[in-house]
Amino acid sequence: MPRVFVAGIGSTTFGKHDGTPIEHLAVKAAAFAIEDAQVDRSDIGALYLGNFVSGPLNGKEVLAGIVADRLGLNNIPCTKVEGACASGGIAFRHAYLAVSSGSVDAAIAIGVETMTHAKTPQTTAALNCAMDHEYDSPSGLTFPGLFGLAWRMHSQRYGTTRDEVAAVVLKNKRNGLRNPLAQMGAEITIDQICSSAMICDPIQLYDCCPTSDGAAAVVVISERLMRQLGPSRKVPFVEALSSIQTRGSSRIAGHRDLVSFDATVSAAAIALQRAALSPAQIDLVELHDCFSIAEIIDSEDLSLVPRGQGGKWVMEGRTAVDGDLAINPSGGLLAKGHPVGATGVAQVYEVVKQLRHEHPNQVQNARIGMTHNLGGTGVACTVSIFRGIDT
Amino acid sequence: MPRVFVAGIGSTTFGKHDGTPIEHLAVKAAAFAIEDAQVDRSDIGALYLGNFVSGPLNGKEVLAGIVADRLGLNNIPCTKVEGACASGGIAFRHAYLAVSSGSVDAAIAIGVETMTHAKTPQTTAALNCAMDHEYDSPSGLTFPGLFGLAWRMHSQRYGTTRDEVAAVVLKNKRNGLRNPLAQMGAEITIDQICSSAMICDPIQLYDCCPTSDGAAAVVVISERLMRQLGPSRKVPFVEALSSIQTRGSSRIAGHRDLVSFDATVSAAAIALQRAALSPAQIDLVELHDCFSIAEIIDSEDLSLVPRGQGGKWVMEGRTAVDGDLAINPSGGLLAKGHPVGATGVAQVYEVVKQLRHEHPNQVQNARIGMTHNLGGTGVACTVSIFRGIDT
Repeated sequence: MPRVFVAGIGSTTFGKHDGTPIEHLAVKAAAFAIEDAQVDRSDIGALYLGNFVSGPLNGKEVLAGIVADRLGLNNIPCTKVEGACASGGIAFRHAYLAVSSGSVDAAIAIGVETMTHAKTPQTTAALNCAMDHEYDSPSGLTFPGLFGLAWRMHSQRYGTTRDEVAAVVLKNKRNGLRNPLAQMGAEITIDQICSSAMICDPIQLYDCCPTSDGAAAVVVISERLMRQLGPSRKVPFVEALSSIQTRGSSRIAGHRDLVSFDATVSAAAIALQRAALSPAQIDLVELHDCFSIAEIIDSEDLSLVPRGQGGKWVMEGRTAVDGDLAINPSGGLLAKGHPVGATGVAQVYEVVKQLRHEHPNQVQNARIGMTHNLGGTGVACTVSIFRGIDT
Repeated sequence: MPRVFVAGIGSTTFGKHDGTPIEHLAVKAAAFAIEDAQVDRSDIGALYLGNFVSGPLNGKEVLAGIVADRLGLNNIPCTKVEGACASGGIAFRHAYLAVSSGSVDAAIAIGVETMTHAKTPQTTAALNCAMDHEYDSPSGLTFPGLFGLAWRMHSQRYGTTRDEVAAVVLKNKRNGLRNPLAQMGAEITIDQICSSAMICDPIQLYDCCPTSDGAAAVVVISERLMRQLGPSRKVPFVEALSSIQTRGSSRIAGHRDLVSFDATVSAAAIALQRAALSPAQIDLVELHDCFSIAEIIDSEDLSLVPRGQGGKWVMEGRTAVDGDLAINPSGGLLAKGHPVGATGVAQVYEVVKQLRHEHPNQVQNARIGMTHNLGGTGVACTVSIFRGIDT
């Protein structure tokens, strides 16, 4: 299969963008990525845009075409893809596929969402578009409810403590403080976390990712174009070794186990196999910590941390930026923010910065990185693996 | 490039489905297509679902995963794609790409929309998600307005008459009468058309496609799987020769000409070239007649009818089911209906029925068929070409 390289990345800050039109944020991130890639706009043969709820929250669709129009791209296929919170990861995977299938020499993936302009009930209703309403709405279970149940079960089965779950928040908030793109980095205490508002017992305010606006973009290219651009490049290329998309049950009752997401388990296994790597070879991962407990579950599902040990690892500092395996050195969704459709592309942005060794919260000697993006109640998942090629 | 074959097709009727949940319609069409294809569900390696406004109108997203869940498909990539009215065509193209790239042996494309349950202002607002609001909303130009302008310009430049445009409606309504899936087939008169309500001068009520619910699905397979299934098949396979997706300007002011859509012109040219066919070899086309005048413009943009002659051809019966080139023997959007995200997949359904020679409004000796799906103000377009292989 033809090799795929990340040539350029771009991102807006995550946070409140005060009503900036959604297409402006997408164009900004994409323009940064194209500039960074040093490719000619006419080389870009496909555009994928990940977005979840621009329809309900902005009354705007066909964003892929609108953004291509503003960017002055050619008459190329432009497609919005959606898989709830995994929309960005799906956009990246399709740009990857466009190049790895040999059909184009360069493709751009863009992820974007604006949410902070809407009133809270509207935002909640929009986010609930990710539920399987027919089966799960009658129970009244919301996303905090689902992850609250998962937390309780993880605690019962593996003895995971409140302090261990809080350690995820402490770590990610601290990481976020070192990331200028992050919305809510902070130096906080366990006491602050445990005295914050109860959202859905045991989940408290600091255990939840914030509502965010933001966009990110990634330009991927073929080996042929990489070799052509190579001599004039100032920044190293990063190779995308694999990019896998899976699905799990859309219904909560369809999950085999509440403390594991099948879609993550299978995506990680296939992505590692395609990249011919073992979990121990992963130096850092940007994973889907929509809630604090999700980071612990994800790290185990990805086979990066032994089952049931996620809480211990974070408590012992093994997932810190200077630990055995850096998890969410960007601050993750908890501190960097979660503009839904942008997140999966932004994770690639962060990993590529790390593998280029130019991240403000650098993981020393980072060589192999992974991204993990999860949608809905685990119904859609992407896992991608990257390698720095000049290190 | 590996060859791609349509093994199975399914569709619901188009029309009012009285509040049937959107996922039920999609599952029904998909189950028909899988049954028709006689493939094992475990052979299906990718699912693409075309949908435009389920978020705003139903509060439901991640439909690709939800539908796969109900169908009992494997843990495969399931992706919603969106490009306004071209969403269905984009879904088909991505299923085609999944097989033509060699990554899977079978893929399913589903298109679905439900609209009739919503109140008219809600539906209008949802459809307007396809506008480039920043540029085009200030003018107050709606879709009937755009096509009304195009009509006036076509009349001025080529002398196209009211009677010629009405002939499109007469033909498609009559074709729809022979299609049991069609929402609004009818035997009507020019007088009825010309005395119907004025929507946006010169566009009157009968010049507009109706609001519809519906779903369609298509299973595409590789040559390997085709040969494996071959001996036990009762129905002939249809080969998908090419499937092309393009974009045009998202802004009305960005169009070079109001009586031509660049995205259609280039998609058709590339699709014909890839299929190694000339326009004269096309026996029938299902094209995007969202308004009566659109059929005339599309037929010219697709290079199937000489520029400016679209009105003459329909008036002379050359585009009737027994004419030189059958246009919209299904009844088209005008008579069959336009459940937005479903339309592009439903066009493939109709063409495949024709090429299998099992259509209730059969084009005699049909061997090569084309589909054309156009989104927004021409911002997204797909054109696909098919050949019956047992004829």
